[in-house]
Amino acid sequence: MHSSMAARGSLIFSFLGFVFMSFLAHVTGVTYSIPFQADCVGNQYFDLAGLLCRDCDSVSQVKSVDGLSCQCRPSYKTTRNFGGPSTTVECEACAAGQVGTVDGWNCIDCETADCLNCNAGDIGEEYSIAGVLQGTKTCTTCDAATLPDSAGIQCERCHESFLAVNNDCTCNTPLVGGLCFGVNEIQAPAQDTFQVSYEALDAPLSSWYYMEYLQAAEAMCRLYQNLTACQMLGNLCVLLHYNPNSLNDACGYFEAIRGASATPLIGDNPDWVVYMPWLKYVADPADEILTEINIPTKFSAEPTSEDSTLKLFVAQYSATGQYRGLGSVRGGVIQLCNDTEKKMNAAYTFATSYSSSCQLKAQDLWNNYETTFFDMYLQYTEGSSTVLYAVPVLLDNYQDDGTFENRQETNTNWQLTRRFFLVDNVSGKTASNTPATVIRYASSIELLVTLQDEAGQTREGKIYPPLLKIQYSELVYENDYDSNTEVTVNFRVTYEMSRDYGENALSTALGILSGVGVVWALVRSNAWRRRAGLIYIDIKTMFKFFFFGLGMLADVFFVCLFGTTLYWLFFFKRQDLVYLVLPHKAQEVSFIWYLSFAFFCKSLDVLHLIVYQCLSDVFLIDWERSRGRVVQSSDPGSNKGSVAPVSIWRTYFVANEWNELQEMRRSSIFFQMSAMLFFLEVIGLKNLTTMDPRSDVYVDPSDYTGDPSRVLRFAVASGIYLLLSLLQWIFFAFIYERFIADSMRNFVDLCSMANISVFVLIDNTFGYYIHGRSVHGFADTDMKEMRDQLKREEDNLCGQRGLLPNSEQQTFEILLPMKFREQYNTILQPLDGVAARIDGTRGRPDAGRNQEAEKSIQAYQTMNRFLAAFLDHGIRDIDYVVKDKLLLEQILDMEFYDPADKGFFFNDGGHAFDNALFHGNESTLQLFELLLFCIVDLMFTNFVLAAIITYIGSAFLLKVRAAGGRANLAKKTLVDERFLI
Amino acid sequence: MHSSMAARGSLIFSFLGFVFMSFLAHVTGVTYSIPFQADCVGNQYFDLAGLLCRDCDSVSQVKSVDGLSCQCRPSYKTTRNFGGPSTTVECEACAAGQVGTVDGWNCIDCETADCLNCNAGDIGEEYSIAGVLQGTKTCTTCDAATLPDSAGIQCERCHESFLAVNNDCTCNTPLVGGLCFGVNEIQAPAQDTFQVSYEALDAPLSSWYYMEYLQAAEAMCRLYQNLTACQMLGNLCVLLHYNPNSLNDACGYFEAIRGASATPLIGDNPDWVVYMPWLKYVADPADEILTEINIPTKFSAEPTSEDSTLKLFVAQYSATGQYRGLGSVRGGVIQLCNDTEKKMNAAYTFATSYSSSCQLKAQDLWNNYETTFFDMYLQYTEGSSTVLYAVPVLLDNYQDDGTFENRQETNTNWQLTRRFFLVDNVSGKTASNTPATVIRYASSIELLVTLQDEAGQTREGKIYPPLLKIQYSELVYENDYDSNTEVTVNFRVTYEMSRDYGENALSTALGILSGVGVVWALVRSNAWRRRAGLIYIDIKTMFKFFFFGLGMLADVFFVCLFGTTLYWLFFFKRQDLVYLVLPHKAQEVSFIWYLSFAFFCKSLDVLHLIVYQCLSDVFLIDWERSRGRVVQSSDPGSNKGSVAPVSIWRTYFVANEWNELQEMRRSSIFFQMSAMLFFLEVIGLKNLTTMDPRSDVYVDPSDYTGDPSRVLRFAVASGIYLLLSLLQWIFFAFIYERFIADSMRNFVDLCSMANISVFVLIDNTFGYYIHGRSVHGFADTDMKEMRDQLKREEDNLCGQRGLLPNSEQQTFEILLPMKFREQYNTILQPLDGVAARIDGTRGRPDAGRNQEAEKSIQAYQTMNRFLAAFLDHGIRDIDYVVKDKLLLEQILDMEFYDPADKGFFFNDGGHAFDNALFHGNESTLQLFELLLFCIVDLMFTNFVLAAIITYIGSAFLLKVRAAGGRANLAKKTLVDERFLI
Repeated sequence: MHSSMAARGSLIFSFLGFVFMSFLAHVTGVTYSIPFQADCVGNQYFDLAGLLCRDCDSVSQVKSVDGLSCQCRPSYKTTRNFGGPSTTVECEACAAGQVGTVDGWNCIDCETADCLNCNAGDIGEEYSIAGVLQGTKTCTTCDAATLPDSAGIQCERCHESFLAVNNDCTCNTPLVGGLCFGVNEIQAPAQDTFQVSYEALDAPLSSWYYMEYLQAAEAMCRLYQNLTACQMLGNLCVLLHYNPNSLNDACGYFEAIRGASATPLIGDNPDWVVYMPWLKYVADPADEILTEINIPTKFSAEPTSEDSTLKLFVAQYSATGQYRGLGSVRGGVIQLCNDTEKKMNAAYTFATSYSSSCQLKAQDLWNNYETTFFDMYLQYTEGSSTVLYAVPVLLDNYQDDGTFENRQETNTNWQLTRRFFLVDNVSGKTASNTPATVIRYASSIELLVTLQDEAGQTREGKIYPPLLKIQYSELVYENDYDSNTEVTVNFRVTYEMSRDYGENALSTALGILSGVGVVWALVRSNAWRRRAGLIYIDIKTMFKFFFFGLGMLADVFFVCLFGTTLYWLFFFKRQDLVYLVLPHKAQEVSFIWYLSFAFFCKSLDVLHLIVYQCLSDVFLIDWERSRGRVVQSSDPGSNKGSVAPVSIWRTYFVANEWNELQEMRRSSIFFQMSAMLFFLEVIGLKNLTTMDPRSDVYVDPSDYTGDPSRVLRFAVASGIYLLLSLLQWIFFAFIYERFIADSMRNFVDLCSMANISVFVLIDNTFGYYIHGRSVHGFADTDMKEMRDQLKREEDNLCGQRGLLPNSEQQTFEILLPMKFREQYNTILQPLDGVAARIDGTRGRPDAGRNQEAEKSIQAYQTMNRFLAAFLDHGIRDIDYVVKDKLLLEQILDMEFYDPADKGFFFNDGGHAFDNALFHGNESTLQLFELLLFCIVDLMFTNFVLAAIITYIGSAFLLKVRAAGGRANLAKKTLVDERFLI
Repeated sequence: MHSSMAARGSLIFSFLGFVFMSFLAHVTGVTYSIPFQADCVGNQYFDLAGLLCRDCDSVSQVKSVDGLSCQCRPSYKTTRNFGGPSTTVECEACAAGQVGTVDGWNCIDCETADCLNCNAGDIGEEYSIAGVLQGTKTCTTCDAATLPDSAGIQCERCHESFLAVNNDCTCNTPLVGGLCFGVNEIQAPAQDTFQVSYEALDAPLSSWYYMEYLQAAEAMCRLYQNLTACQMLGNLCVLLHYNPNSLNDACGYFEAIRGASATPLIGDNPDWVVYMPWLKYVADPADEILTEINIPTKFSAEPTSEDSTLKLFVAQYSATGQYRGLGSVRGGVIQLCNDTEKKMNAAYTFATSYSSSCQLKAQDLWNNYETTFFDMYLQYTEGSSTVLYAVPVLLDNYQDDGTFENRQETNTNWQLTRRFFLVDNVSGKTASNTPATVIRYASSIELLVTLQDEAGQTREGKIYPPLLKIQYSELVYENDYDSNTEVTVNFRVTYEMSRDYGENALSTALGILSGVGVVWALVRSNAWRRRAGLIYIDIKTMFKFFFFGLGMLADVFFVCLFGTTLYWLFFFKRQDLVYLVLPHKAQEVSFIWYLSFAFFCKSLDVLHLIVYQCLSDVFLIDWERSRGRVVQSSDPGSNKGSVAPVSIWRTYFVANEWNELQEMRRSSIFFQMSAMLFFLEVIGLKNLTTMDPRSDVYVDPSDYTGDPSRVLRFAVASGIYLLLSLLQWIFFAFIYERFIADSMRNFVDLCSMANISVFVLIDNTFGYYIHGRSVHGFADTDMKEMRDQLKREEDNLCGQRGLLPNSEQQTFEILLPMKFREQYNTILQPLDGVAARIDGTRGRPDAGRNQEAEKSIQAYQTMNRFLAAFLDHGIRDIDYVVKDKLLLEQILDMEFYDPADKGFFFNDGGHAFDNALFHGNESTLQLFELLLFCIVDLMFTNFVLAAIITYIGSAFLLKVRAAGGRANLAKKTLVDERFLI
């Protein structure tokens, strides 16, 4: 406590002092900046405390080698130096004739004038081995086996190569790389020995690096089996891209030593001689190497599993052959693109298609990379032992006699190799201290992992040996160094399997189902032929068959693609032992073609649907009869008044509503699209579509995310789409139409109230009929009577609305005899094209126009009478019966009866007539929208854009249908378009 | 050529050889794997060529220190060793009585029995200084100033501290940190000298690191001004979090030396003594330091500018005080979260709010970080000189006597410091070779840059000194090391300015404009009062005023917020010299409140609009008169037939169309939302909303992206929304309605053809009138006559449709006298609630129901007659005149006339009646949708979700309006809801 009190007191005191000081300081203004002095020039040292350059004593001191302090000049001795600032270093001039010792602590007499004139190979002895300062610095000849050290004050043993030749440190031959070899012990260089060929240069370059090191490395390796030298010789060969075409370059030397040696092999591997690196696969052809099945690991996609990562190891060697250890590739060891360790390590998560790419500054490649060589292994455990399996390298730049053998499609002639580097900034040097004229860098590295596969059966989780594909690019100093060139480098890990099995299955399914589809299209077109009243198969039937076929093919293709991709999605994302990998870009091509074809077919199908519906015959039968003759009240005696007109407004009303039905859908495209976006983008299901086995909806931004996979995007989007469609269907069929509003039922209701029947012929002799005859006889009346009628019906005080007495059935599918159609056409003849003609002549009064209009009105009235009579069984030749459809007929959507003499009215479920509208063709339209969505997403990989375009496409279709339907309705029912609003 | 041929030949030959070999190999099966041998045990060395462990010769060899080769045992001499495998190393046993020399190349006789019994301080001399092997290894005493080297074969000069005390290498006092000091030269340790307090531990920890180094560093610094020792002493103080409360710990020692020294200062900085580190700001208080305006650089947001980055430099020191250079912080020097260099460097791009966060493994903090200390500077250029400006550090963990002074809100008592570290894994050591018991790491680092600001005027691009805020957390070995603990570390760069100016401007604008808005609401509610026929201001008027006011406030708030955020967007993204930074999270709070308030007001406004419109009075006036009496043709003599009924179907038709108009909008919400998404998500305008000054739409994924800024998101979303609204308005007003379809005009047209007028009273005495009296007298007729009528009108053979003779004006705003309203109400009285009552009784026949219906039909007929008479000027007391509205009336949307005795029909522009529909209130609805969009985005930061919810909200409003309007229409016009489909 006391000491702490004291401390406090002292602190307070010093605080007061500082208050005073700081007051002063504030008045004077403290400067919190210092000059920036990067390099100290002259005899200045860098004061590491103040980050300033300060002078060494100009007389007695010079700055030290590291530049951070001062030391005494050579002719001075240090009397005090505790590593403080220059003022604390004390130096004392040596007496005349003396020099400072090399360590600076003493002065010493010189034997020679200035202690510099000793012979080569002599040292100036200053201290004895016991540290005793000698009286005089004398020149002493070194022992035969030694040479002077760099300071020249002690002798050190020279390199063994000298002693091996002469038993002393002299060398009668020129030194090679600082070493000494006997006569004829080194290889005489040929013309190409020191030359390195670059693609970027026209002529080979004479490499200083090879001149400096090649001969020595070769000789040390050959003569003495020096391990480092052999590694270096291997490296020098690797830097030649394993050039197989010369005997006098590094590779030739290497092969000569390797071939000549009778030394044992590593294991039974004939390519790997014991003390040398293993560079090339020579014993086995590439196709056999790449289909070895010796790796026993069953890889898993379960993140917690031991075997969910590729345990790749690399043995690293420096350019000069020093061993730099054997370690994992994790942490970006072979990735030039720096990123977070987590993301870089994601490359080795099994089944994750990894891809990274970045720009590197060319200058950095020259300055910041040390050329290092790698031998890659895959580590696995077999029983209790851990094994390293050699990973072959496919060097893209490998040339044999000018042929790029490794660029061939088939792998039989590939030359697999072992060792690779990332950046080579040594071979291109033309002098020791200049930057390399050319450098090489691995612009593209791809690790290809292929799943084992036998007779179409994948072996769960097992792989063939991975293959490392490397491509090098080059940069030229004079072009790229100063011009801030940036280069792109790629690193990828891809997975492959023989997809024959999956593709075959898909093709087979497509084939079989397409066949079924075509048969079904045949059935449908035959049914159509009957409905169209055609006896023979003519060009029209063929045409129909074509369109039915397109529709069926689109369905079939979609079903097959969806099934396949869903299979991929589920099994790729949910696999424990990996036996399935996704198709890569090239393999997606057939998928894209299939999907495009399906979309194309469906588009034509929808187009056909619209045209078909917009050409159907519609007629509104007005059952209302005139109430009699109208006489003016002002003219009580007359009974000659004109016939009371039947108001056309009921017809207008019903036509207007039918027109609105034409624009209706049974699903909400808005709901569909926004729910898609909600699930995909907001909930995040799109995160399931990346090419990694992770199946989480939430993705941590710091995690690596694989590239999007087209097939997975298709599977997820289609799956959600179909589920949402189902949901909508359930909602509309069981909730909305039952409890909220059923437009179809409302329309039938309206018809009944308006005393108007709707007669739709979608084919020549097939169509739909809505029986709308009022049970009250009259509908064209005032508000009071309308109310009364409604009330009476509510109270069940009147008959039932059905076509047959005592029946409620108002809606029918109808199949009519050809005779009916002929009569129909006869009546329609004058009408045909009238609307158009009237339209064309609108605004200019002419005689023909009135006539035309007159005729059309007549035709309308005739048709009204004809149809009313027909429905009342009032026409002798043409009659009909009401039946139920057989179950099979319902299922096949065709009729077994022949309407040769009698028509058939089939009771339907209440709204069969919506088949003549978009409302009853939801499945076709929704499949079209789904395919449109997927196609747009395929093109732009953007769900938002896909949703927008799909919505627009869908709205456009509806508009087209509405416009076409409106024109058709106006033409066929003679209701002016102005009332169809 | 010849040599290459030869080479080829030789290659072919060797190739053939290999073919044979590979055939053999294939038969035998080459093994491409090797065992994985991480550590070689026993007398094995690691063969770097084969990556295998191999035996050294058990008799003569041991493995070398690096484990990569074999060397001869001490009692052997090496006769051959060229760095090859162990078999190439040859050793020869020394003769009896001899040992191998330390370098292994020779054998030497021993003076003593086994050459090991020399005295301490003696060496066993093997070679002379000239490298000559001595005959016998003799014990030689080292010179007084020297000590034996580690191998014991040569003497080396001992540390100066020994010589300084005794002039030789003996030391009479115990060594301190390996150094020798005289008696009383070192500080006697107190109780707390070697103790370090950790928040994670209850009691202070006795630190081995302090015991080892503190006294020596202190003594070396104090006695000899050793630069490294002074740095280390400083570091030891930093590791105590600058503890100011003891005289006997590192900080106390440091302060004592600093305070005692009379040495000069660095510049005029009293806190920085020349040879010592500068640790704390003592001279000036924090608030003055942080508002210095000495940094002259004008920072720019232009990426190409020199001054677009913060040039931060750090001087680095190792824990033991070694200087590690002065360099840029770029490349993640002070960022614990590793990422791509590009992203890490983005932290120093000026005006980019940077934030990164990641998880680090606790084990890595123990093993993979070297404790390093940093002094930070900001580099700038002033004239021709480059200057380093000291960046102060705010150490969150700093405690003065138990108080965390630096955690206070105000900065006046803050203790700013200089030196910091990222990870401390040394101070917590309790022994030299054990891991630290506790480690500290910088869990949160924030660089705060404040823009200069004077009297509300920012000085363009100039800043105050940046402040580095650091917070340290601790990990305890026994809890965290083995349990795979991960810790989160943050690094942020934030920018601040005094936002008083901007906020004041916003508040002022809000105040003034709100005032204007309230006045305008007063005017509007007064206009409403007149239209409602109220003479005095009553509670209803107050109520109206409240809702008008809410609507106005919402508009005002939106305009102000949009203006302010647009200003921020443009000036933040487009600034050359940075004078504006975005509000940070805390400052966004007021923005969020304002926006929420605006949304709340607008929601109530829209609710009010819907209720108001759904309560309006609508009546359809049927001008049709009965054609006379109907007599049956079958009864030619009779003229007593009943009055020919006027068909109600025209009324149904018009009511149905009016009902549809109620569901119409003059803009497409789908277009609005999908175009929003298209621009924001697909085109990528959302990339403008990040908190960095970049203004590119395309963002390279490898670039750093700032956090989203709420104000920028609001500005961009609102801007696009308003532009799209404008576009839609132009499209609808000038293209769609003119050339494609104008629903309003079509409806007026329909009314004329149907001989029905629409009379809408939206307020008590104010409303709209559509004059639909047929120019043909009768409309209730058959198709033929309708066609004739249409034709006659086309041919201009009949009168004009206007209310006044020879006028085309069919639509009017009407302001009626109160007398009219009273009459209207009187007629309506029996009707009031009838529909509801009828509805309520539907299905059960009772007497009352018929009566009710009867009454309502009567009321309907009376009303029809009353209104027809009124319009025909047929009512004595209540008449009207047709006028044009004054311009000012049009602008203010009010009337200056008093309809005391006469009503006014004002000619309008053709569709004023759409004010009674959603169609005429687009601006209110769109602003609501915009605010809804922004509010949702504010909550979820997701434009897709915002678009979906806005669409749903908008559709919901429309449905509510449609349902309410339909019920109202059915009630007011007596048209059964079944006809409103």
